[in-house]
Amino acid sequence: MKSYLKLTNEEKKAELEALYGMLEAEKAKGYKLDMSRGKPAPDQLDMSMDMLSVAPETMIRSCKGTDARNYGVLDGLDEAKELFAEILGLSPNNIIVGGQSSLNLMYDCIIRAFVFGVYGGSKPWGQQGKLKFLCPVPGYDRHFRITEEFGIEMINIPMSPEGPDMALVKEYVENDPAVKGIWCVPKYSNPQGYTYSAETVKAFAALKPAADDFRIFWDNAYIVHAFREKDDELLNIFDACAEYGSEDMVYEFMSTSKVTFPGSGVAVIAASENNVKFILKQMGVQTIGFDKVNQLRHVNYLKDAEGVKAHMEKLAELMRPKFDCVVNTLSENLGDLEIGKWTNPNGGYFVCFEGLPGTAKRCVGLCAEAGVKLTGAGAPFPYGKDPEDSTIRIAPSFPSVEQLSDSIKVFCICQRIAALETLIS
Amino acid sequence: MKSYLKLTNEEKKAELEALYGMLEAEKAKGYKLDMSRGKPAPDQLDMSMDMLSVAPETMIRSCKGTDARNYGVLDGLDEAKELFAEILGLSPNNIIVGGQSSLNLMYDCIIRAFVFGVYGGSKPWGQQGKLKFLCPVPGYDRHFRITEEFGIEMINIPMSPEGPDMALVKEYVENDPAVKGIWCVPKYSNPQGYTYSAETVKAFAALKPAADDFRIFWDNAYIVHAFREKDDELLNIFDACAEYGSEDMVYEFMSTSKVTFPGSGVAVIAASENNVKFILKQMGVQTIGFDKVNQLRHVNYLKDAEGVKAHMEKLAELMRPKFDCVVNTLSENLGDLEIGKWTNPNGGYFVCFEGLPGTAKRCVGLCAEAGVKLTGAGAPFPYGKDPEDSTIRIAPSFPSVEQLSDSIKVFCICQRIAALETLIS
Repeated sequence: MKSYLKLTNEEKKAELEALYGMLEAEKAKGYKLDMSRGKPAPDQLDMSMDMLSVAPETMIRSCKGTDARNYGVLDGLDEAKELFAEILGLSPNNIIVGGQSSLNLMYDCIIRAFVFGVYGGSKPWGQQGKLKFLCPVPGYDRHFRITEEFGIEMINIPMSPEGPDMALVKEYVENDPAVKGIWCVPKYSNPQGYTYSAETVKAFAALKPAADDFRIFWDNAYIVHAFREKDDELLNIFDACAEYGSEDMVYEFMSTSKVTFPGSGVAVIAASENNVKFILKQMGVQTIGFDKVNQLRHVNYLKDAEGVKAHMEKLAELMRPKFDCVVNTLSENLGDLEIGKWTNPNGGYFVCFEGLPGTAKRCVGLCAEAGVKLTGAGAPFPYGKDPEDSTIRIAPSFPSVEQLSDSIKVFCICQRIAALETLIS
Repeated sequence: MKSYLKLTNEEKKAELEALYGMLEAEKAKGYKLDMSRGKPAPDQLDMSMDMLSVAPETMIRSCKGTDARNYGVLDGLDEAKELFAEILGLSPNNIIVGGQSSLNLMYDCIIRAFVFGVYGGSKPWGQQGKLKFLCPVPGYDRHFRITEEFGIEMINIPMSPEGPDMALVKEYVENDPAVKGIWCVPKYSNPQGYTYSAETVKAFAALKPAADDFRIFWDNAYIVHAFREKDDELLNIFDACAEYGSEDMVYEFMSTSKVTFPGSGVAVIAASENNVKFILKQMGVQTIGFDKVNQLRHVNYLKDAEGVKAHMEKLAELMRPKFDCVVNTLSENLGDLEIGKWTNPNGGYFVCFEGLPGTAKRCVGLCAEAGVKLTGAGAPFPYGKDPEDSTIRIAPSFPSVEQLSDSIKVFCICQRIAALETLIS
């Protein structure tokens, strides 16, 4: 196929007419396909069913003899802390195993910072007037919804395959005390699947914030979620911070939502011992403890970092063909048209498509008409506003490969239409 | 035994010397007994072990076909909402099944009210200067710790066997817009085991708060926790509110922490549909959903309100002898001495002992010396300050009957010592 940029206006119009016809044919198929959310597929969840038949008697006692069924142990059972410490390359003293939703932990960190402040901060965020957060874009819509809810001004930071633009991050963080935090998905970023380079991680560690209560929200959601032979390497941010004594600046998060069961997994906050102590003191007013039976269920099932890796390799077998299908179908249908590019990550949950400016909303709308649901255009940006209206997040995990193939074919028709509509003069 | 109030000073001194000797003998036994917290005993937890072997395949699909293992359904699965609606005498539309800790739900309601406000309120609590909360006393220490954390002034409201002093509650609530809430444990109250009378509940429903954002925190923690033949009757506060159109004023809470496993149970907030909608909108920013597999686990195990009742009857068999032991041992050892009175509830988790003024701290300290750990004197009061220093919360659930018998004997010796020390002139 010839680049759309090289077509004459007449050729574009003819092509567009043909595509409208193709789209009508797709609509007639009555699809009901969903690529909107990063949800595991049922067959992926089936892989963890054995966790639900872990022997009941192994969920009673922790290694220290604590009765996991009873109240207490706010920071999590030792064996659970050890499992996550091993995965994160930290000490169990840096771990709080808290509930089943890392998003909930992030929200709670922010609302407590807002009302009570953070370790080392001179006053609560909420008593300091206008606040700002840096938002690498495209990013995770649910991060942005939290900061939006608090009326925190969100500032777009461009992403590259190396991570966020660190010169810009440094400029904001080191000069503006209203900047209280930054949202990061450092490995297999949502939605691009980029992994921050070692230089980027070091630049984070080297930050000297103007605010005494600035925090990096390091959402390591996809830390164990490689699905190709090569697993991206992410420098341990706490190792990098150790050189600068900046460990108190980082809150790291992870969960087993996409390891075992979303919503029924185990979520973790990892932080310096200063932060851990401070957070536990606040958390101890909020609750007596989290679900320790579920902690033991996970430890008994996953065992250790090696066990998690083996489990994730089984899930990778299911994910890889889906991502292959997406990128191959995109290549086949859009390869030479010069109307968009897309990422091809080694892990995570998303492919990010970047089309011509002004095409994303139109494409998502056309797909919806043909029964293919995509994440809303703009969703990966603060306030839902994609300045270029060009970025679309594709979530290949939930549909089957067949459904994906159908969906992406429809997507490509819609992208071609949207592109031609903007190109025709 | 003769009333201590009728002894001569010499007789008191002789008795006191004898008691010091008895206490030394008890100390020599090297007890390590704990009556400090309302924790279920291991044999009680054993009663729910079958819940951990619920067939895995029954934890996949909800009645509506939702995959419980995946993301979503913020307000809880239908069958879980139905179970709790039936127990609470409400409609499923009034229920949010949220997480595993009702204390966490209460804290979150308060922190969100603080930052964002409540349904119908004109501004967030946190933007209204000095706030106040009413605290029926004695009450639950963890309630009071939450309001203390927020710097909310706590006002003691005396309890009677009918519930809080409603004339006083009405006076505060209807005249002072700074009064934003009241902590209530309406059935088998912590620590007295009192159940609010129908008149009390109606008086709550009839309140016309000065604040447009006042909330009753109705912590129905012991709603199904009868352990004698007679179960106290508590009027459904939402039924009472229906007469006054005051349903939006109430947040009701319950959990299965003391039905199945503390920390690994299911917690619920029940409220008017206006409140439920408002809360879900706020909660939807905080999390994608709670542990639905655990919701199905509970529903499959407990079935319905009848199933919960049958389960609680088994637990009652374990609780009753413990409460019998406490009240009988107290009667035998303190019966005629006129140095204290105690409650004898039909359910709940506590016996409340009220000694002579100025004796509680001393008694708790003496017990600790003899290896018997009690809830700290003052704990059932805001700021940990018992104005009379007379109230001690006894938590009989965790120790065995034998341990309880030993503990209460020690307790009685200590109470007698503390009483005589204040009586000797």
